[in-house]
Amino acid sequence: MAPAARDALSRADHIVGYDTYVQMAGPFREDQKVHPSDNRVELDRSRHALELAAAGDTVAVVSSGDPGIFAMAAAVLEVLDTETDPRLRAVRVVVIPGITAAQATASRIGAPLGHDFCVMSLSDNLKPWDIIERRLRLAAEADFVIALYNPISKARPHQLATAFDILRSVRTPDTPVVLGRDVDREGESLTVTTLGAVRPEQVDMRTCVIVGSSRTRLLPRDDGSIMVYTPRFYPCGEGA
Amino acid sequence: MAPAARDALSRADHIVGYDTYVQMAGPFREDQKVHPSDNRVELDRSRHALELAAAGDTVAVVSSGDPGIFAMAAAVLEVLDTETDPRLRAVRVVVIPGITAAQATASRIGAPLGHDFCVMSLSDNLKPWDIIERRLRLAAEADFVIALYNPISKARPHQLATAFDILRSVRTPDTPVVLGRDVDREGESLTVTTLGAVRPEQVDMRTCVIVGSSRTRLLPRDDGSIMVYTPRFYPCGEGA
Repeated sequence: MAPAARDALSRADHIVGYDTYVQMAGPFREDQKVHPSDNRVELDRSRHALELAAAGDTVAVVSSGDPGIFAMAAAVLEVLDTETDPRLRAVRVVVIPGITAAQATASRIGAPLGHDFCVMSLSDNLKPWDIIERRLRLAAEADFVIALYNPISKARPHQLATAFDILRSVRTPDTPVVLGRDVDREGESLTVTTLGAVRPEQVDMRTCVIVGSSRTRLLPRDDGSIMVYTPRFYPCGEGA
Repeated sequence: MAPAARDALSRADHIVGYDTYVQMAGPFREDQKVHPSDNRVELDRSRHALELAAAGDTVAVVSSGDPGIFAMAAAVLEVLDTETDPRLRAVRVVVIPGITAAQATASRIGAPLGHDFCVMSLSDNLKPWDIIERRLRLAAEADFVIALYNPISKARPHQLATAFDILRSVRTPDTPVVLGRDVDREGESLTVTTLGAVRPEQVDMRTCVIVGSSRTRLLPRDDGSIMVYTPRFYPCGEGA
């Protein structure tokens, strides 16, 4: 955890967040009040945090990864944006960045995000699936390295296969794919495969999927391991 | 600086990197040897670091931001990928992630990267400009929030204007734009403007430019400041 995040937690009177992440951020002092909540109640949790802060206390809202990337910072600002209560509207909000899952996964395997990349969520809880399909196709045509968040869930078991099919229609089967599960946590696993070989069954909600660009390379190391990186240069005459 | 990066620097016998970044990472102990180098000699610097490591020492290669994002990790792996000397090929490489400029800028202003986004470099030192134009157009059509690195230089003063024109052909003039210069360093500056109003003269090489998606919103705060965020949800029937 970054020192700035550690300092903020230390200064907080209240710690608000998804139960699992609050536990990972602790332990906390006896004078700090912890408010763990279920997953998927981001707006309720944000409003609760703003109410505690409006009462005059200092509140830390805990996220995993970077709170500014598919996480709690946007949820808190969404609530503020629709809020009319002047006490809540007056709350000062500071965002402290962190390492998002794509960076954690990338760093463990080399530098797949070494050149132009995008990060997108496959969850259609909050956006229509046709938008996601269109965005995937354009991202593939743009030859971005693509990091996929929320790649699969029980409620939508078939969409990741569709996503891989879209990417396969633009990229070659030997395109490197990295699967990072629970990176930087207990039970971390990393898999290097290819777009031709990857199967949705290898992926769950806790996996970050990084699909290489046309330039991303596998780098077999002398110790038998494999690293993955995307070079910084792009040769002339070799279009996306 | 993240504790893991601080630990790695502490364990290093040699510190290699661009002069400015090495200075920012210090001070170092008397038993540590510092090898500052000029900017734009990434491959020479990487080879030097690998040679020092092949001799049996521990070497830290310093980057700003996240070394895995448009920085030194890819340069080191590029050298390893073409290297035939078995001593250099046997060097163990570990990448420690950090906060990249887009995250630092985003966190200071709210959560503009709260939904699907891309990060791309406008530098045509290492890739042809026509690839960059095509990628920009596709990124805009995909409705990504777009973070631009290396947005302008003395050698290419006119390309940023072209880039803004491409984005204006797809996005509306009121699209929020954030300019973060030297964020988290001395003399940090942050500007919130719009795609209709932004001028290339407001931007230099040390600026990270974040152009919002169709969904990115300005959030005026009661204290007179402005925050910027991209909501996590995407309404049905409102295409990219």
